[in-house]
Amino acid sequence: MESIDKPICIITDSHVGALYKFSFPTLCFPAGERNKARAIKEQLEDALFEKGFGRDLCLIALGGGVTTDLVGFIAATFCRGVELINIPTSLMGMIDAAIGGKNGVNSPFGKNMIGTLYHPAKLVINPQFLETLPEKEWQNGQGEVLKYALLTGDDLMQMEPQALIRACIETKLRMIGDGVRDLLNFGHTVAHAIEKVSEYSIPHGEAVMLGCKVEAALTGIAVDEVQGEIPYCPSELLTAMNYDKKGAKKFVALREVGTPYRELKTYPDDHIIKTLEETICAPSTHRT
Amino acid sequence: MESIDKPICIITDSHVGALYKFSFPTLCFPAGERNKARAIKEQLEDALFEKGFGRDLCLIALGGGVTTDLVGFIAATFCRGVELINIPTSLMGMIDAAIGGKNGVNSPFGKNMIGTLYHPAKLVINPQFLETLPEKEWQNGQGEVLKYALLTGDDLMQMEPQALIRACIETKLRMIGDGVRDLLNFGHTVAHAIEKVSEYSIPHGEAVMLGCKVEAALTGIAVDEVQGEIPYCPSELLTAMNYDKKGAKKFVALREVGTPYRELKTYPDDHIIKTLEETICAPSTHRT
Repeated sequence: MESIDKPICIITDSHVGALYKFSFPTLCFPAGERNKARAIKEQLEDALFEKGFGRDLCLIALGGGVTTDLVGFIAATFCRGVELINIPTSLMGMIDAAIGGKNGVNSPFGKNMIGTLYHPAKLVINPQFLETLPEKEWQNGQGEVLKYALLTGDDLMQMEPQALIRACIETKLRMIGDGVRDLLNFGHTVAHAIEKVSEYSIPHGEAVMLGCKVEAALTGIAVDEVQGEIPYCPSELLTAMNYDKKGAKKFVALREVGTPYRELKTYPDDHIIKTLEETICAPSTHRT
Repeated sequence: MESIDKPICIITDSHVGALYKFSFPTLCFPAGERNKARAIKEQLEDALFEKGFGRDLCLIALGGGVTTDLVGFIAATFCRGVELINIPTSLMGMIDAAIGGKNGVNSPFGKNMIGTLYHPAKLVINPQFLETLPEKEWQNGQGEVLKYALLTGDDLMQMEPQALIRACIETKLRMIGDGVRDLLNFGHTVAHAIEKVSEYSIPHGEAVMLGCKVEAALTGIAVDEVQGEIPYCPSELLTAMNYDKKGAKKFVALREVGTPYRELKTYPDDHIIKTLEETICAPSTHRT
């Protein structure tokens, strides 16, 4: 890494922190989506102040999507903004969370409800991190891979990791550059509702995978490779969508695989309920 | 006011809230600098979510500097940023806090340590609010007036309120436009230390007034119109300056009244201690 002429602090989570020894000051927070929270942000900020860091700090976010979201938000607001370097260690982080500048924490009312848009000064992608990535975290990244595959029509599932990561990053940056960033929320209106209703026991990637299946089905497109049911009833999921920050029940929609509509779509509640019943909600949860 | 085609919510403090009846949804927080805090921000955010507001919210900050700082920060981070209208009701708010986009909350480590730069879509200045402003709040605004007077050499103290407000706003916007925003921190390195050491029992405006006297004296300029002593020892104040987000003990300095240096200055600790002893620290607090 080129030299940085500033005080540096690394923030990482307890999983990644256990794998490496660090030669810079490092703060470690407990791993998990539940800890992407205002209370943890406050603790980390105060720990930075206690260590004497100020506005010339260079903050390094080392970890998965939870870490880059949380540390990005800290960097955006610590002394009104300090330099940020993102080093994603998970597939999800490399292809999605660490790119594009969105950050935030969860609130009891939903995911990423409080945050900013704040770009890292540098993004370091090192696929070697994937060698220590647990299988379930690799799987977790597949939700976003599926999203990109449905949005672009590219056969991403067959690619080697390095080519896959490059293709996903290029797609995300191209869509942001084209001013159609909203399309990257495909699958996420339903995914966020699933996460919320499950109290985050269903990981983000799995929720996105299920969300992609549902949102594709809303325009009649079957995503048969996604299997599995969840034990939550359709109306509960529908209610959870209301608080989504994208506005009430608005969806990115596919005309066909690889061709999303530019405008967000709304659907009658009944159509959403029926689609949820037909795709991911276990029969025992259906209305009678 | 022209019509706004969005859900509106007013946030104000308990002092201003008691003076008016509101025809829009309104949230009220307890008045006072101590409440410009992360916990209050969180409570207000959750109250907004509870009322069903989302990213299309237009947030109106109605109040003094504490209110516009706090509500500005909420607007910057609620659903990653919503529209903000500032309606300052105090002299301090009108001439300083509500202008320029800086917002933030205090932490145990100092004032405004966490925040962003986020510009209001509209700024509404109505001097009629000053008619209900308590005398001590008018006095509190005089700290910033003194700061502008020392920076520009203008005889602001003799102006009528409306002309005074206009002159101060023009000075602030001109300095920001000229890229010398840092100069607006004149008096504030010492002022923030005073506030911190006094645990915010000394109001911001009074602290700025004392801070201006000290920081002018650092380059040998006497501000005789500011009188009064504080019961805190110089070394305690010096230590409190260390955590200032502007970096360790850096000061805006005056070549003469109306002519600040463009570069921030540092001074030997001994010179700062001696100046504090000679200006604002009661003799009982001096080193022996």
